[in-house]
This record gives sequence, C-alpha cells and structure tokens, in this order.
Amino acid sequence: MTTLRIAGGRVLLPDMTVERADVLVDQAAGEVLAVGGTDQGDEHLDAEGSLVIPGLVNAHGHAAMTLLRGYADDKPLGAWLQEDIWPAEAELTPEDVRAGTELGIVEMIKSGTTAFADMYFEVEEVAAAVDSAGMRARLGHGIVTVGKDEAAARADVEESLAIAREFDGEAEGRLSTAVMPHSLTTVSEECLSMAVEGAREVGVPIHIHINETRDEVEPIVGERGIRPLEYADELGLLEEENFLAHGVHTDERGIELLAKTGMGVVHCPASNMKLASGMAPVQAMLDAGVSVGMGTDGAASNNDLDLFGELRDAAMIGKLAADDASAVPAEQVVEMATAGSAEAIGIDGGRIEAGANADLAVIDFDKPHLTPAHDPVSHLAYAVRGSDVRHTICDGEVLMRDREVLTLDEKEVRETAEKRAVELVGRA
Amino acid sequence: MTTLRIAGGRVLLPDMTVERADVLVDQAAGEVLAVGGTDQGDEHLDAEGSLVIPGLVNAHGHAAMTLLRGYADDKPLGAWLQEDIWPAEAELTPEDVRAGTELGIVEMIKSGTTAFADMYFEVEEVAAAVDSAGMRARLGHGIVTVGKDEAAARADVEESLAIAREFDGEAEGRLSTAVMPHSLTTVSEECLSMAVEGAREVGVPIHIHINETRDEVEPIVGERGIRPLEYADELGLLEEENFLAHGVHTDERGIELLAKTGMGVVHCPASNMKLASGMAPVQAMLDAGVSVGMGTDGAASNNDLDLFGELRDAAMIGKLAADDASAVPAEQVVEMATAGSAEAIGIDGGRIEAGANADLAVIDFDKPHLTPAHDPVSHLAYAVRGSDVRHTICDGEVLMRDREVLTLDEKEVRETAEKRAVELVGRA
Ligand SMILES: [Zn+2]
Ligand SMILES: [Zn+2]
Repeated sequence: MTTLRIAGGRVLLPDMTVERADVLVDQAAGEVLAVGGTDQGDEHLDAEGSLVIPGLVNAHGHAAMTLLRGYADDKPLGAWLQEDIWPAEAELTPEDVRAGTELGIVEMIKSGTTAFADMYFEVEEVAAAVDSAGMRARLGHGIVTVGKDEAAARADVEESLAIAREFDGEAEGRLSTAVMPHSLTTVSEECLSMAVEGAREVGVPIHIHINETRDEVEPIVGERGIRPLEYADELGLLEEENFLAHGVHTDERGIELLAKTGMGVVHCPASNMKLASGMAPVQAMLDAGVSVGMGTDGAASNNDLDLFGELRDAAMIGKLAADDASAVPAEQVVEMATAGSAEAIGIDGGRIEAGANADLAVIDFDKPHLTPAHDPVSHLAYAVRGSDVRHTICDGEVLMRDREVLTLDEKEVRETAEKRAVELVGRA
Repeated sequence: MTTLRIAGGRVLLPDMTVERADVLVDQAAGEVLAVGGTDQGDEHLDAEGSLVIPGLVNAHGHAAMTLLRGYADDKPLGAWLQEDIWPAEAELTPEDVRAGTELGIVEMIKSGTTAFADMYFEVEEVAAAVDSAGMRARLGHGIVTVGKDEAAARADVEESLAIAREFDGEAEGRLSTAVMPHSLTTVSEECLSMAVEGAREVGVPIHIHINETRDEVEPIVGERGIRPLEYADELGLLEEENFLAHGVHTDERGIELLAKTGMGVVHCPASNMKLASGMAPVQAMLDAGVSVGMGTDGAASNNDLDLFGELRDAAMIGKLAADDASAVPAEQVVEMATAGSAEAIGIDGGRIEAGANADLAVIDFDKPHLTPAHDPVSHLAYAVRGSDVRHTICDGEVLMRDREVLTLDEKEVRETAEKRAVELVGRA
C-alpha cells in the first residue's frame, strides 16, 4: 500500500465545517484512509495555506464542445443549435471528439473537477480520454431521432445502449455510463420508451435534457395537454437513479414529481443565462427535497468548464429567482457542486471522510481575492476561481501538482485542439 | 523620453477588432505613442501569445470593503447594511481604510483594472493608497445624513466638498474627485441640494446610488408621488458629468431622463444578483442611448473586485433581463467595462490609440480555457478571468509584470489586511 499525505492544510468536512487536518490517502485503493491522524505517509503533497475540498463534480456537459468555445455567441438556443452548433457537430470526426474532450478534461482538472457526466457522440473517444487522464466520469451516447427514419432512429437508441453496456465499470471502475436521449422533443416517444426499457435492462441510469427552454415545453403541452415532467413520468423516466439537465421551466407540480420520484436535477446556471433560457427555481426545488447537482453544460454556452463559476452563478441567480438574498446560500452551492452532483449522477463522491473515494482538490487560499479569511465556505462560493486550485487528485492519483497536469500534456492538448477547431469550423 | 515597447502580441483596437501589433508607450507622458510602427523602445514587455487591451475601469466601488469580504453573506440589502456592514464600518480606523483599500488595489491591479471610482470614508487614506500604487481613480467622501442632526448633516456635506477640492488633480493628475451623496433616501433633500450646488462650485461631478432596490424607490414614490430619477432631476442631479450606480429599478421614463441628460449609469450586476436587488434593463438603456459603465461595487457584495467577472455577469444577466440571448453581447460588455466606464466617470481611458492614456492590461491567451481562439472578444467577455492578466500598466508605468505587483508589497498588504479585518469584526 502506497500512502499519500496531503499535509499542512485545512479540510472541508461533510458538515461544511473546516478543520486543520492532514488527509491520508490509500493510493492503490483510491480511498481516503484518515482525516487527521499521525501516519506519515509515503508521499507528501503540500497543502500549507490551502483548503482541501472534495473534487467538484460536473454533473452535466458535453466536453468536446470546447472546440466550439466562442464560435457563435449571443444567439438564442434554437437558432444557435440549428445555424451554428449542429452544422459544426455534423463535421466532427472521432479525432476531433478526442481532442475536444482532452481539452475539456485539462480545463476541468485545472479547475478542481474530478468527475463529470458527459453526453456526446463518438463516446469510445471520450472514454479513452477519461481513462488516460485518470478522471471519473459517467458517459453516454446522445440520442437524437428527429429528422431520422424509423430504422435510423432505432439504430441510434441501440448505439446508446451498446455504449452503455460496453464502458460501464471500465477504467478500474472510474467509468460508468448512462443511456442519454437528448430531450423529450428531439427523441420520438417510441424511442424514448425503448431507451427507458433498454437502460433498465443494461442496469444504468437515463440522463436527458428537460425543461431547458420554453420552446421545449410548449410543443409537449400543445400536443399532449400535459407538461414535460408529466410526459416523462408516463414514459417511466422519473426514477431515482435518473437525472435530468436544466429543469428551468419546472412548475410546482413538476417539482412535486421530482421530489416524489427522487429524479435528480442538474442545474446549469451559466448556460441558462447565456442562452436566456430562464432561471431555474432552485430554492423551491431544495425546499421540496429535490436532489440538485450542478453542471457547466458545454463550453459553447458557458464559455468555460470552471465549475467554481457555476457555484457563484448558482448562488446569485438562485437569489434573483427566489427574490430573496438569503436563498441558495454559500453552503448550499458548495454542497450542490460536490455531494449533490455526485448523488445526482450516481457516483461515490463529494465527501471527505475515511473510506470515501480519494477525489480531492486543494485550493490555495494565500491570494488577495481570498483575503481576509472570515469564512472559507463563502470564498468557495463567491470568490475562488479555478485558477486557485493547486492540486487535483482523483481515485488516489495526483492528476495535477502545483498547477502542472501530470496525466496529459497540456501544451500538446491545446495545440491539437486549436488546430482541429480551426479546421472544423472551416469545414462547417 | 523613456519608451516602453509592449512587444509580440495582438491589440484590441477601439473598433473592437484585433490586430497583430506592438504598442509603444511614452512613459514620462503616460501616453500611447503608436500602435504598430518600428521604433524599438528603451524597455520591453513581452506580449507573445497575449492580447493587449485597454485597462479595465471599475466605475463604482468601495475598495476598503475588502476587509468585510465573506463577513456576512446571503442577506437582503437592508438587513445586511443595518445588522452587519454599518456596525462594522462604524469601527473602521483610518489605518483600516488604508489596509482595505490597498488590498482592493492589489486585487484590481492583478485583474487588469487600471482606474476606479471609489465612494468611502477617510478618503485621504484612499488617495494616498492610489497615489503610491500608481493607479488612476475618481474618489469621494460618501455623504450619509439619515440619523444625523442638521449641523452634523451639513458638516458631512462640507467634508465631501473639502475632499473633492483637496484631491482633484493630485498624484500627477491620476486622482480626480466627485461629491458623493450615498443615495436619495439616506441623504436629506436639503443636503442633496447643497451637494449639487457645491459640486458645481468645485467643478467636479456627483456620484450617487440610485434605483438599487425596490426599498429605495417606494419611499420616494410614497412621499413625493414621483420616481427617484424624477426627484433627482428636480434636484438638478441629472447632468452629463454625473454618474449613478445601479439603476436597477429604472422604468421607461427614467431611461428617457438618463438618455436626455447624459447622466451615466454604472451597472453592477454581481452586487445586484447577490443582494437580490433585481436585473437592470441594460439593453433597453443602451438602445435609448444611455451611457453605461460597469463596476464591482464593494467586495462584501460581490465578493471580489475582478471586473472580468462583471463582464460575464453583465452579458448573462443582460440576456435574462431582456429575455433575448442576443442582448448585451460580448463586444458590448467589453466596451462598457473600458470606454463606457471611462466615459461614465469622466476620465480619459478605455481606448488604445496614439495619444491616449497608457492604461493597459496584457492578457495571456495561452490557456486551456481560452483555446481555441475563434473570437478573442468573446473570450474577454465570457472566459477570461483576472488571473489571466500578465501585465498591468497605468499612466505608462508598469504596475504588474508577469503577475508580480511592483508598486505595492502584495504579501505585506495581504497580511496587514488579514490582521486588521479580524480585529475589526472582533470590535464590531
Ligand atoms: Zn446540455
Ligand atoms: Zn455601492
């Protein structure tokens, strides 16, 4: 057993208190052995002046979309998808997806994220990137059937199921999967049912976008006379292990359905603001007992994968949505981006305690914008940025040490992504 | 004449295009000599892989409030001021104000801000800090007369006028001043009139908070039957050289008044979100021709002084407020935080061209979250953070080189502020 001692810092405990303690990690098992204690450890990681927190969990995104960062801003979701994003995505090669995912992974590691959920295409490339980078992820092939004939539509669902079967449990257990129909309006009823049934058979969750924009709600109400979450309930989609992205346009009845069924919601505040989708009723969801996690969504609608930005955005827009400055407070957003996200996507994470996965981020608090230190949890929510992360550890392995990414070549990843991005938009 | 060549980078021009060019600075005059050209320069500043932009202008804040960063979060404005902020501020010593201002200045220099407007107390300390740090600022003593007897109220106005007279044009012209009544509800009508008249006499603008919260609008409507900007207009406050902070609860008639009079508005999106004050109608203001700048407000309601966060917040909340993803686009927020802010507070700044003040920030674009480089202006709005700033130059002087602040001792500033902040809240 090789042990790693994260030494000299303070630790954020599951009850949101902060304690002066070292953290001892069993690297082979990928687990926290002890918080505090006197064992010296085989290796040391300096945490002087720093706070050790659970690695952040990015519960919804499309990592490879980093290639389209800043490509088409300031447009509404419908036009943006149809005029810019989908035409570019149609040109994506497997190598592009690999390059974009690796860029996204470098960005996430550098900003203290240790696990993420990803809905995309060419998932074998995403899986390979996650495996070699040492991160934890729940991956899935995004099903879109609109505009496809029946055979092609069914084939798309089959592909999502095959991917879910193939990669679940891979990369020494760091990979898990989900079946991922894109949304209730871009996948036919028949294919949604196929996906639900298939996911049960494979034994993995469903992940889907629901209630992101008004344009997604109205066709369902018009056609079926019920709202999206009621439709999803009829389809058998609302289950405790499943999780949806956004949930912006969720009414009281929808919140009740989510609370009753335990279906997780992944809040993506930056994307919802940038696409003018609206403000999710996060405080109301929390009050009702809904399980809420946090995600960046793709870099094209964010425009970065720094989850610390989402903590701040969630606290701030949560107050506006509730018209109450005490809504969605600092502790709550820290909880949402750690334990909340881990619970939503169904991985063990988000808590530092003996026996937990050793997925950790070490934040340098010796910074002007983190001075004075009245309240470190406030700083995590409102002032820490990804660039304050010193070390990132996943499954007991140090992925970044003193801002140097150890599992990928950052410079090469950036250069490859830059080149492929330019070629991609040239083709589109 | 000593010249400084900022070499090897690209430059953001006033028309928001980006061009490969060096920038030549006359350090003694504090001016840009040329963009492009072949003069070698006496000194070099490396800008390889970087973008040279106008230094950001933080058009509204209270720098010394860094001492209260994270001290009392997640509370509505009224309770927050009365229960936490004002009691703590009542304990502030001149040394505290100096320490907090220096911390704020270090933070601003490190995030590419070269000029700011500041409303606070013990302004001689603020002025001394700005002078020694080499920044540009418009300073004023904040007048509050509520709860004071007539003599004390008048003395507060007199102090604001004396400060305005004393420091205007100091620090080789880097200091300018304004008379700064806190708001229309915390300063009596008589004292507001005195301030307006006095400012005209001294020849400096007025800066004031207006329409920040609903609680500030209702008493005026109740008592006078007119809205705050109409009351301000009656007081002679709406003048082209004057500027107000917030303007959240501004209706159509208010927007017309601002457009007609040329009174500048400083948008503080983070503060407005964090205190649940509301969403300023920024796109509507811009459409009407109102001059809009951008500010962080104090660190206690933000919680940092990184104006790049405000660019992103302004674009995002601007879209939500307008219910339109094309509202307040990237170029617009970059314009607002540079030339817009400079115009609002009445300083020369926000444009890189021959003859302009050499107030500049050099942004390192060789970063994963700024890759690929489809659109550098999009990155400035949505992805650049203060930590991406390499060099900061004000009035031709290099204030930060390769992230090292040259005019203040960052470590000492942090330690002093930490110590004073802890003692301050202990007394409060
Ligand atoms: Zn998404
Ligand atoms: Zn203010």
